[in-house]
Amino acid sequence: MSMIGVFGANGFIGRHVVRRLIGQGLPVVAFGRDFPADYAELVGGPVEIRRIDLMNSLETHASLQDVSTVVQLINSSTPGMANNQVVSDLNNNVAPQISFIEACIVSKVKNFIFISSGGTVYGMPKYLPIDEKHPTSPLNSYGMTKLIVEQYLELLSRNTDTGYTNLRVSNPYGPGQDSKKGQGLIGTILKLHRLRQPLTILGDGTSQRDYLYIDDLMDAVAAAVERPPINGPLNIGSGTGRSVLDVIAGVEHLLGQPLLVQYAPGRTTDVPVNILDVKKAADLLGWVPSTDFEDGLARTLATWKY
Amino acid sequence: MSMIGVFGANGFIGRHVVRRLIGQGLPVVAFGRDFPADYAELVGGPVEIRRIDLMNSLETHASLQDVSTVVQLINSSTPGMANNQVVSDLNNNVAPQISFIEACIVSKVKNFIFISSGGTVYGMPKYLPIDEKHPTSPLNSYGMTKLIVEQYLELLSRNTDTGYTNLRVSNPYGPGQDSKKGQGLIGTILKLHRLRQPLTILGDGTSQRDYLYIDDLMDAVAAAVERPPINGPLNIGSGTGRSVLDVIAGVEHLLGQPLLVQYAPGRTTDVPVNILDVKKAADLLGWVPSTDFEDGLARTLATWKY
Repeated sequence: MSMIGVFGANGFIGRHVVRRLIGQGLPVVAFGRDFPADYAELVGGPVEIRRIDLMNSLETHASLQDVSTVVQLINSSTPGMANNQVVSDLNNNVAPQISFIEACIVSKVKNFIFISSGGTVYGMPKYLPIDEKHPTSPLNSYGMTKLIVEQYLELLSRNTDTGYTNLRVSNPYGPGQDSKKGQGLIGTILKLHRLRQPLTILGDGTSQRDYLYIDDLMDAVAAAVERPPINGPLNIGSGTGRSVLDVIAGVEHLLGQPLLVQYAPGRTTDVPVNILDVKKAADLLGWVPSTDFEDGLARTLATWKY
Repeated sequence: MSMIGVFGANGFIGRHVVRRLIGQGLPVVAFGRDFPADYAELVGGPVEIRRIDLMNSLETHASLQDVSTVVQLINSSTPGMANNQVVSDLNNNVAPQISFIEACIVSKVKNFIFISSGGTVYGMPKYLPIDEKHPTSPLNSYGMTKLIVEQYLELLSRNTDTGYTNLRVSNPYGPGQDSKKGQGLIGTILKLHRLRQPLTILGDGTSQRDYLYIDDLMDAVAAAVERPPINGPLNIGSGTGRSVLDVIAGVEHLLGQPLLVQYAPGRTTDVPVNILDVKKAADLLGWVPSTDFEDGLARTLATWKY
């Protein structure tokens, strides 16, 4: 059987991917290091789980034999990680991902769908919105590791049976973002609001991001799973920019009360603005984002676990 | 004192760099793992030697305190290396180079001149000659490692005292190419001729490269040492393409006799043609290649150690 392997299946995006694909009746295997006992409940139905660690390349390789499509979400670094950890990031995060790509090629995986980062691989925008032809010049180690994995996918998959689709995803948000860690800006706002702690805005709050509602991202992943590999990058975002202050105002409007905020200096490893041009995904995946920011935010708050 | 550190000072290019810079009366330190007893003779004068191994980052860091300009030639992989060694290449070649960049930044090196590969970082040409705006999509691990080092230089040097100049060098040739290993096409031709063994042409011999005479490359390195860092890539090549068959005909003409050749299938990790556009280097370094191929070839043969 040709299974769809979701790697990093217990993260925020991973759980949504598994839920969406099993909802469509597709044969899914959830790969990851740790899964909670109620995982089937969290993803809306029973699903085969395979516990793997990418650092264990033999074990990972052996688990791939019936997998024809891979959705790769595993990444052990985060966008806020400092640039003084780049060498350990290269050895402990990038190298295992490259080994994993090699294992997938040897196993003749047909489509390797890589969840890359449209918010970080481009770096400082030279024009807006940013299309896939924009130069790639990441400002932080996270974006660099995503870019390097993309490049190795291109290099290693040439003249093999394996194709790839690099989804350069902007800033996804929605129900299921980790409310304890405070994942993403919106997750962080809601977590701090629950704790009655002030949100620290890095910079003056005018920096803009392209916030993508998780269901829109799922539409893109589902389209990528159904289609032949693109063998290139595709921006996946809302195509619109919102500032930190916009997001705060949106949450305040829904909560009916002001949020506590304080300011701190911005980081040089963050870009002031990131807005993606998503026309190529419309052309090649037949995908367009369809959720208004206000609607997405309302749905996120409605299901938030306080 | 502000020293110029040449890293990989005992290779073909490294020895020429040391010879050129000490010839100009500049303060040079030759860094490398191994040096022959007659090194001073080989490079045309006495020079301070520091034995280092990039894998030993503490030792390397300690050796940098008086170095303000770095010429980085150390690379433990070669263009012919197979793509199935990419993970070890990443861990054992790229990671130590990134640590080295970090050490140079901490030591406040002013200009990190990186000898990159104009022949491999671009991959399959979309147009000719290839300028620095051409997309980078290497076909082999060697080009990928060069590209990754370039990218980390850009990432890590931002907002620091360290600038960088990425010299994307084409195919250098000239006196001093290793006659035992058979370095480069011309070195290989001459080595096999000496041994009366046939040259194996991969493909049909029409694949073109941009051959750069070593003295022209030295003019570019000397200009880069004298100027402030470019903080970007510069193509360094002859700007003209010659096929394998052209090169063979040129050598046969100078030797006055035919060479033994045989044919074998080409490698998919080699590009069919590579010719660099070197206008940017003319603009920013005031450098132009000045040696005719026929003259360079004649000088190479004249000093060849049979």
